[in-house]
Amino acid sequence: MSEKKRRAGAAATAASASKKPRVSSAASYAESLRSKLRPDASILSTLRALATAASKSKPPAAGSNTITAEDDLSAKNYIVVADQDSTSVTSRINRLVLAAARSILSGEGFSFAVPSRAASNQVYLPDLDRIVLLRRESARPFANVATARKATVTARVLSLVHAVLRRGIHVTKRDLFYTDVKLFGDQAQSDAVLDDVSCMLGCTRSSLHVVASEKGVVVGRLTFADDGDRIDCTRMGVGGKAIPPNIDRVSGIESDALFILLVEKDAAFMRLAEDRFYNRFPCIILTAKGQPDVATRLFLRRLKVELKLPVLALVDSDPYGLKILSVYMCGSKNMSYDSANLTTPDIKWLGVRPSDLDKYRVPEQCRLPMTDHDIKVGKELLEEDFVKQNEGWVKELETMLRTRQKAEIQALSSFGFQYLTEVYLPLKLQQQDWI
Amino acid sequence: MSEKKRRAGAAATAASASKKPRVSSAASYAESLRSKLRPDASILSTLRALATAASKSKPPAAGSNTITAEDDLSAKNYIVVADQDSTSVTSRINRLVLAAARSILSGEGFSFAVPSRAASNQVYLPDLDRIVLLRRESARPFANVATARKATVTARVLSLVHAVLRRGIHVTKRDLFYTDVKLFGDQAQSDAVLDDVSCMLGCTRSSLHVVASEKGVVVGRLTFADDGDRIDCTRMGVGGKAIPPNIDRVSGIESDALFILLVEKDAAFMRLAEDRFYNRFPCIILTAKGQPDVATRLFLRRLKVELKLPVLALVDSDPYGLKILSVYMCGSKNMSYDSANLTTPDIKWLGVRPSDLDKYRVPEQCRLPMTDHDIKVGKELLEEDFVKQNEGWVKELETMLRTRQKAEIQALSSFGFQYLTEVYLPLKLQQQDWI
Repeated sequence: MSEKKRRAGAAATAASASKKPRVSSAASYAESLRSKLRPDASILSTLRALATAASKSKPPAAGSNTITAEDDLSAKNYIVVADQDSTSVTSRINRLVLAAARSILSGEGFSFAVPSRAASNQVYLPDLDRIVLLRRESARPFANVATARKATVTARVLSLVHAVLRRGIHVTKRDLFYTDVKLFGDQAQSDAVLDDVSCMLGCTRSSLHVVASEKGVVVGRLTFADDGDRIDCTRMGVGGKAIPPNIDRVSGIESDALFILLVEKDAAFMRLAEDRFYNRFPCIILTAKGQPDVATRLFLRRLKVELKLPVLALVDSDPYGLKILSVYMCGSKNMSYDSANLTTPDIKWLGVRPSDLDKYRVPEQCRLPMTDHDIKVGKELLEEDFVKQNEGWVKELETMLRTRQKAEIQALSSFGFQYLTEVYLPLKLQQQDWI
Repeated sequence: MSEKKRRAGAAATAASASKKPRVSSAASYAESLRSKLRPDASILSTLRALATAASKSKPPAAGSNTITAEDDLSAKNYIVVADQDSTSVTSRINRLVLAAARSILSGEGFSFAVPSRAASNQVYLPDLDRIVLLRRESARPFANVATARKATVTARVLSLVHAVLRRGIHVTKRDLFYTDVKLFGDQAQSDAVLDDVSCMLGCTRSSLHVVASEKGVVVGRLTFADDGDRIDCTRMGVGGKAIPPNIDRVSGIESDALFILLVEKDAAFMRLAEDRFYNRFPCIILTAKGQPDVATRLFLRRLKVELKLPVLALVDSDPYGLKILSVYMCGSKNMSYDSANLTTPDIKWLGVRPSDLDKYRVPEQCRLPMTDHDIKVGKELLEEDFVKQNEGWVKELETMLRTRQKAEIQALSSFGFQYLTEVYLPLKLQQQDWI
């Protein structure tokens, strides 16, 4: 290898006075990394040890973030919604409506106590490593000009959710809006009240059977039942299985995987699926094809909680890639009340990391200059608690901002279409090179 | 029913002087349509007769648009690319390169003959009912300042495609770009040359093993093999099976469906999947979740050609819904050279049609006013040959433009979340109400 390296270096010096790595030298260096790879059996034994460690660790460390006693204590201060079955949600609605009816009969009219979902009420809790909603409620009385309309909309949404649960079906937010366009006016209003109702009932939006559209796909060493149908994800071809929009119809999750590989983009997913990467290194591969949707986040969390596997992430080396990781890990601000059910803490950043660009000698032409907006987003991320907590992440982000360079996963294709699956990922796994 | 109708009408008159249908009357009318439904067995026998007729009709009428002798004749005038296996594409590349080498050795340098893909060269052929590319080639000599760069890029793309085919893998356009960023400069250039290469070799882009990302999903009475894995689409839960990006890995298509239901949107797809509509009326349900991607178009065409089933479309009642139909049926302009392989003619417009809004008394509040842009697109569609050919479509589009109203499939939710699957679609099928 060192011989190859020397030759590559000499060629680069001879051909160019520039310091930028040239394609030919970079390519031969990249090829030389192949010889660093130990036999698969050796890499697999490392992975097995890691998977065992992950499954044995305490729930908080393993990031399973189920509601523990500790959570319950602080739950007095912030809203925690949880998955509830239809019967439980229905009886919660019944109780709310009965209370309203009693209040009306006693001559006091009715009012809903609605948790405030304002930005000022959303905080990041380092202990829990996620964004949560503080407990602060405001009254929504019907007998008040300012709130009469919203109280009506709230009552209507409660009744619609009740109907959906009774029928045992699932609907989209759009469906909900169209059932009473005259009252709701526009969808933003019914959507907002739906989130209110989630907080009021203390249950997740999926428990209300109102689902988001699906975007994600999964392949690999995983079997589960989707609405009773047994799905074997090693037998889903190159296309993969679409992640179901209604997580509560997913059951019987089983796997012999050693880790979960979370991929930002479709193209990398396709490469991994076609090369059946999961047969060489037993894993579950999933992608939301960009910005993660609710269904994919719920699905990942279910896998993590039930299988207790390490989650390794493969994203672009740019601030947007890190943002996507933050959504998976800490949740998005406008769904903060549901962060416990939507987030998967303890995701490891495998690559492509800013330091990889030099380490793997990604050719200068395959790197892109960061735009002003990229730099702004990058600087903002440096201020985020979830980044600050991880020293390795801070360093990487600082490297990115210093070099002002970004790169896509696809940049690895400059060393050959299958470099990702044949060299880059196996070497990463062998070296346990994630942070 | 007439009693119900009278009551509903009376209620409407009593309650409101406005002519607009009100929610309550519309809802009771909508409910009354349920009684119009004949037993499923009767609807099924109609569908069976239609499916038999479709499978027996001549290829052009059935819209199977495989390359027939007739096509071959006119093919002298326009470019027809066809699916080719790897061996055939490889030998075509070899021939091109050998010709270039001979030309260089004889001292004449080399030049590629590249079909022009300019807009002026793209025409709609009524006989074939699709957009095609006229045969008009331009030379791309290497020994010319204006074309030297493009000739080099063309040679490089040919060599990359050759490498991909030799390895028997599939890559994305983005992968291709990243293998030589320095030469290609930006992806638009490698993409454009890739289309050139497709035309030059006379084969589809999927034959080059360069695939688009997948977006579509499918459920229902269909089994096929994806990269050798047997997929039963009645056992894909609510999420469905992701349509594979590489159509040439799809084989062994089998089905007992009576028709294919093409759905514009994810939400309607989810409703149909959850209600297992395909078990009541045997069908294959697919969606590209909006604007159709290449993978979904290729997949639909394969189903249509191999299964010879009628294709019924469920899209929004707006110009955009019709645009989507046009892409499935006639192709998009920038892929005109590949229209024979990407298009599925003879798709029937089942709904939601502008005339349905009054016929099903969709409440006024669930209809949306058309924007100026909508109206412009609608008027442009009226000038399109593929619309003009179908009198029914012209009438519907004129109705839309006259009333200046549009509506989404979801508008039917105003009559209940399952109205789509329980009343609207069964009634449409019973009445053979498509055009």
